[in-house]
Amino acid sequence: MTIHHTAIISPKAKIGANVEIGPNTIIYDNVEIGDNTIIGAFCEMGVANYLSKGVPLIIGKNSNIRSHSIFYEGSTFEEGLMTGHRVTVRELVKAGKNLQIGTLSDLQGHCEIGDYVRFHSNVHIGQHSKIGNFVWIFPYVVLTNDPHPPSNTMLGVTVEDYALIATMSVILPGAVIAEGCLIGAHSSVKGKTEKHSIYVGSPAKSVGPTSKIKLEDGSDAYPWTKHFKRGYPEDVIKNW
Amino acid sequence: MTIHHTAIISPKAKIGANVEIGPNTIIYDNVEIGDNTIIGAFCEMGVANYLSKGVPLIIGKNSNIRSHSIFYEGSTFEEGLMTGHRVTVRELVKAGKNLQIGTLSDLQGHCEIGDYVRFHSNVHIGQHSKIGNFVWIFPYVVLTNDPHPPSNTMLGVTVEDYALIATMSVILPGAVIAEGCLIGAHSSVKGKTEKHSIYVGSPAKSVGPTSKIKLEDGSDAYPWTKHFKRGYPEDVIKNW
Amino acid sequence: MTIHHTAIISPKAKIGANVEIGPNTIIYDNVEIGDNTIIGAFCEMGVANYLSKGVPLIIGKNSNIRSHSIFYEGSTFEEGLMTGHRVTVRELVKAGKNLQIGTLSDLQGHCEIGDYVRFHSNVHIGQHSKIGNFVWIFPYVVLTNDPHPPSNTMLGVTVEDYALIATMSVILPGAVIAEGCLIGAHSSVKGKTEKHSIYVGSPAKSVGPTSKIKLEDGSDAYPWTKHFKRGYPEDVIKNW
Repeated sequence: MTIHHTAIISPKAKIGANVEIGPNTIIYDNVEIGDNTIIGAFCEMGVANYLSKGVPLIIGKNSNIRSHSIFYEGSTFEEGLMTGHRVTVRELVKAGKNLQIGTLSDLQGHCEIGDYVRFHSNVHIGQHSKIGNFVWIFPYVVLTNDPHPPSNTMLGVTVEDYALIATMSVILPGAVIAEGCLIGAHSSVKGKTEKHSIYVGSPAKSVGPTSKIKLEDGSDAYPWTKHFKRGYPEDVIKNW
Repeated sequence: MTIHHTAIISPKAKIGANVEIGPNTIIYDNVEIGDNTIIGAFCEMGVANYLSKGVPLIIGKNSNIRSHSIFYEGSTFEEGLMTGHRVTVRELVKAGKNLQIGTLSDLQGHCEIGDYVRFHSNVHIGQHSKIGNFVWIFPYVVLTNDPHPPSNTMLGVTVEDYALIATMSVILPGAVIAEGCLIGAHSSVKGKTEKHSIYVGSPAKSVGPTSKIKLEDGSDAYPWTKHFKRGYPEDVIKNW
Repeated sequence: MTIHHTAIISPKAKIGANVEIGPNTIIYDNVEIGDNTIIGAFCEMGVANYLSKGVPLIIGKNSNIRSHSIFYEGSTFEEGLMTGHRVTVRELVKAGKNLQIGTLSDLQGHCEIGDYVRFHSNVHIGQHSKIGNFVWIFPYVVLTNDPHPPSNTMLGVTVEDYALIATMSVILPGAVIAEGCLIGAHSSVKGKTEKHSIYVGSPAKSVGPTSKIKLEDGSDAYPWTKHFKRGYPEDVIKNW
């Protein structure tokens, strides 16, 4: 265990074996850090909040939280969480394994995220979002939730397995991004979508099935699992 | 007064009664912090700047500045300021009471903001913006100011009382968002708007009065003050 | 040399003459900081990364890195770099002189940037971007690179000399923003563009030459070098 001498660690925090904690980082009381996890400099882990109702922040083993990140208490991440810098994660996120969260991304809490999900930089995940497995969300995408802002209704977005949302798209309250869909860059999406279809524009409309998109070598670009394997564990890839 | 032992506080700063200051936070010389205010970890308050012309940073009483935030000297906030994390606020902001500034928001300074205004996450307020009372601005909205970038002309945006600007909209230089207007998500707005009207698209066009939007129970969604009261003081709500 | 006593400086780092380093900032091993440079509080300079292949982070003389910024090893900046706060810069950026990088901007590395370039706040520069001289990129612009996300193809964006990209535009993979082009706010651009032309919309279309845009006084707004000189050195301006 390598904890920098300037880090401030609550004696109540549960720190696993072989954990590294960087300079100036603060670990508050209600936190469990899994084995072999690295936490960079200037982080805050387990910020207290009454909405967390005493539930701890749990970071699974083999995780890597990069510097300047802030996690509230009350969220759970399975093993292999990897973040960029300056990530902000509020309470009551329930996330599967091998989640990646890019630099500057902001998870507003109260949401569910499956396994092997990838958020690129500066993604905003509104409360009550439900995100499946193997989903990709690209930079500056916002998942919203309030149909009549400001209101007391929270109508979260659903993103199903293998779906992809490209850069700077807005997903409107209650929208459902169906399995394998591709939302083009700079779109805004309302309502339901058809599986494995491409949607572009604002408001977004279907422009056909994802199967029509080809790679440079003429092979199918989608499902992307046929050709893209970087960062996924061997036992996952072998089933693709 | 609870000041963490790692905080760096200038002896010239004026710190009110019952103020909390978190780990590693820096309070520079030219700062006045009101009573009962909380300042989180890793903040910088009162960054010196020649554009501030020696005017102090004044934070009103009963405020809560969350961690990793940066405020320059030269701005004034009345009581009850509440911020998310990583907020950046430049010089010469003049803001009323009960302002909320969401995580990652960036106020470029040289602007006026009324009372009870709410900025959600990652809002960018360009210089020379004039924002009324009870305004709502949602994530990834940018208020611009340069009609011929780059130029020496600063033509700020005006947002009147009770107006709402939804996620990822751009308000172009000199535009006026009239009282009670609703700007739909992913829009770009130029010129003047009519009061209590809905504008959507890029360029945004009017699609009718806000009075046509209903809540789930069939009641009027706007004016939103009829049904949304969260976070406003009792004496404000009783007048709605 | 003024180094705050809370800063953590590797003895292996090469620090020039008359350098200022702020509170809590960390300078890692593989870093060269030029003379007369200021580095604010809470920064990390020279974050180690296997992709940097041992190449140092080199910051030219007379630079000003504002607080909360993070630079990886492996990038080179010529003299006069100026940044806002919370800038993130990954490995293998090769940048010319007098670069400005606004608050919250995120350079993903593996890119080339010319001289006298200005990035405003919250700009995202994807890997394999090639940016010329005297380019302006405004807030919330994203330069992308993956034509079939997620794929192993990296098709960076090219931005030629004197081009301008206005707020919240997305530049799609492989697009070329030609010399002196103006991309209007809230646009998305694909493919090639004509020199000194205006493009707006999503997808963006040409709406004529930049020469048709006039300033308030009736003079030409473009080329902008005729009327805008703020922050450029005298010996540069005299050639405009």
